[in-house]
Amino acid sequence: MLTLPKLEIDRDRLTANIERLAKIGQQPSGSICRLAFTPETLHARALIQRWMAELDMHVRIDAAGNLIGTYAGKHPAPSIATGSHIDTVPSGGKYDGTLGVLAGLEVVRTLHKNNVRLNHPLEVIVFTDEESTMIGSQAIAGTVLYDDIERYHLSTGQTIQAALESLGGDWDLLATARRDRTTLCAFVELHVEQGIILERTGHQIGVVQGVVGMERHKLRITGQANHAGTTPMDMRQDALIAASKLVLAVQTIALALPSQPVATVGYLTVSPNAVNIVPGTVELNVDMRDLSKEVLDRMIEQLETEVATIAAETNTEIEMMPLLCVEPTPAAELVQSAIASVSHQLGLTHCSLPSRAGHDSLEVGRITDMGMIFVPSQSGLSHSEAEYTSPEQCAQGANVLLHTLLELDAIYRL
Amino acid sequence: MLTLPKLEIDRDRLTANIERLAKIGQQPSGSICRLAFTPETLHARALIQRWMAELDMHVRIDAAGNLIGTYAGKHPAPSIATGSHIDTVPSGGKYDGTLGVLAGLEVVRTLHKNNVRLNHPLEVIVFTDEESTMIGSQAIAGTVLYDDIERYHLSTGQTIQAALESLGGDWDLLATARRDRTTLCAFVELHVEQGIILERTGHQIGVVQGVVGMERHKLRITGQANHAGTTPMDMRQDALIAASKLVLAVQTIALALPSQPVATVGYLTVSPNAVNIVPGTVELNVDMRDLSKEVLDRMIEQLETEVATIAAETNTEIEMMPLLCVEPTPAAELVQSAIASVSHQLGLTHCSLPSRAGHDSLEVGRITDMGMIFVPSQSGLSHSEAEYTSPEQCAQGANVLLHTLLELDAIYRL
Repeated sequence: MLTLPKLEIDRDRLTANIERLAKIGQQPSGSICRLAFTPETLHARALIQRWMAELDMHVRIDAAGNLIGTYAGKHPAPSIATGSHIDTVPSGGKYDGTLGVLAGLEVVRTLHKNNVRLNHPLEVIVFTDEESTMIGSQAIAGTVLYDDIERYHLSTGQTIQAALESLGGDWDLLATARRDRTTLCAFVELHVEQGIILERTGHQIGVVQGVVGMERHKLRITGQANHAGTTPMDMRQDALIAASKLVLAVQTIALALPSQPVATVGYLTVSPNAVNIVPGTVELNVDMRDLSKEVLDRMIEQLETEVATIAAETNTEIEMMPLLCVEPTPAAELVQSAIASVSHQLGLTHCSLPSRAGHDSLEVGRITDMGMIFVPSQSGLSHSEAEYTSPEQCAQGANVLLHTLLELDAIYRL
Repeated sequence: MLTLPKLEIDRDRLTANIERLAKIGQQPSGSICRLAFTPETLHARALIQRWMAELDMHVRIDAAGNLIGTYAGKHPAPSIATGSHIDTVPSGGKYDGTLGVLAGLEVVRTLHKNNVRLNHPLEVIVFTDEESTMIGSQAIAGTVLYDDIERYHLSTGQTIQAALESLGGDWDLLATARRDRTTLCAFVELHVEQGIILERTGHQIGVVQGVVGMERHKLRITGQANHAGTTPMDMRQDALIAASKLVLAVQTIALALPSQPVATVGYLTVSPNAVNIVPGTVELNVDMRDLSKEVLDRMIEQLETEVATIAAETNTEIEMMPLLCVEPTPAAELVQSAIASVSHQLGLTHCSLPSRAGHDSLEVGRITDMGMIFVPSQSGLSHSEAEYTSPEQCAQGANVLLHTLLELDAIYRL
């Protein structure tokens, strides 16, 4: 149990800061457009940097442009860290990423105001470009793909080199941003769920079991385009028939597995796509996610079997090409226990669940103990101006973050 | 049996004329672009008009721009007619339509050379714009939809009024182009099959049972676009899952019916169509064809049942909107018998089959006795430069046409 006086974050201050940040990049619709590396993001980072300085935090920017504020600890030791990102999708909401950063600052503000110092240095990290390249957390994890520079092309047309430079980073020195357990003993991220599980089950806090891994594959089905009138049904090589069987097979594969993975065909195009022509080719992308690498591997194996069966049944050729493979990152048991125990002590209902969206924790969890705290998203909506988590729910999450960090500070040896 | 001397068309002359017409509008790829109402089509019509005049045919252009050459008969009587079209799709072949027109002229040339006159006047009709509006044969059948002028909009941007004018037609007088049994007692069209049945079954001549009718419907499926990671499988309203079930249901409906109808989903679009978003809406078009109106009606009923079942299963809404309904036209028994009997007498193998592509006969068959003669299409290919029917096969079709017209001339009373 904690021996510290019962600290509590200031709900209204946290709410006010969330609203203040939401003004930066806010569109007439109410949505927020704060793409990484844009003037809006620089503006938001400058504000956060000022707040960090006001809290006597040491501020630095690493080669990946990550903005890192350190609240000194009582002892020289590896840091305990929290944080998230403040960049958004083109029509984002107020909470995705931002809550984790501002709650981290609110934790430090609460400690600072109460003259409390941890044993370990406490870092609040604003990661660079979570919504697109994840270059910030990848640099910290040492997972940047230097030989696949294409992956880091920005939709704004900027090169990643110029983009990093604009934040004070440096592509050529990216390796220096890498961390390990000797400098970072634990990382805890508070985030809105962006899903409907907590709301549906009526829990206040989600203890994240890990961030799911992802397998993305492109499937190209080649049949034979032909006259929709004169080609008898039994002479067709209809690429859309094959595609339809595949779409349903992908769903069946996911539904049959007990770990409740998700699997989606979200992208599908037909060619020549005319009402009177039997489809000649279809391209579709499959996205599969699960907490377990073994389950993902099994899903891909099953998909390969279905591909062969369906190609034979429909007299088509089906190529399967990997697009993306992201290994899942489990949350550390120790951090999960701390979050669950703190939630219980604070009288908050909680449940365990995977994070099925990607987060900076996915990368940081590859090099140190990681945990995530989820708070509910109204109707599960995210990446939209309709994204909403109430001030009370945000405060509950921030209090769980505060006391989890305090508990971890006690657990990790110096 | 025919009492006339055994006439035979001239294969080489027919082949030379097919090659000559193929030069008009031929592209570097070898395909032919002779869209209705274009200078290329006017050029081809002028050539045919000259040939008609050389054969002492009376030439007229009706209000629909149909070019009609009449080879006078021995008696005043309703005409027997043949013909087809010389307009092509943007990348057409040498035979689709053209064979029927040039074989008709070759029949007249053979009669003329042998000083043979039929009892009935014999017409060769070049129908206007078969490949798009079918305005020519529709005007003759009286099925022009005056209150749906949109249907006759040309892809070239011309209005139908101006387009008809360019051929010597007149939209405002279109009703005068209408025919009935008092002026037209039978119509026989020779055409390439544009399918693979004759080649596959090894028959030289196809006796067409009729031209299939068509039902086209647009289906709009509305689900809920959602995050492909955070939306559990059992909470989804995936429009593409519903669409895939529909595509397979359309195939199953056709395969289960003994008349071997065809049914196709050739057009399908997904929205928002992103790899990481559960599809929110899908639009697809269904095309169903059969010789029997009753079978078509039953297919639509079954589709409506499937739509309701699939909407309920997938928690989506599915709207079904008619796009096009064309009633089938059976070929006259008498004309089918004549074609079969002539083929037999000429020592040509033959089989009965429906025409599953649309033709001018579909319309003309609504107002008089109609029949169609098919000759094989190599590999079933059509609407492409790869369209091919050998000189021998073209000549066989033209000879069947010649003797069928002679037999009908004997059968129909004056």
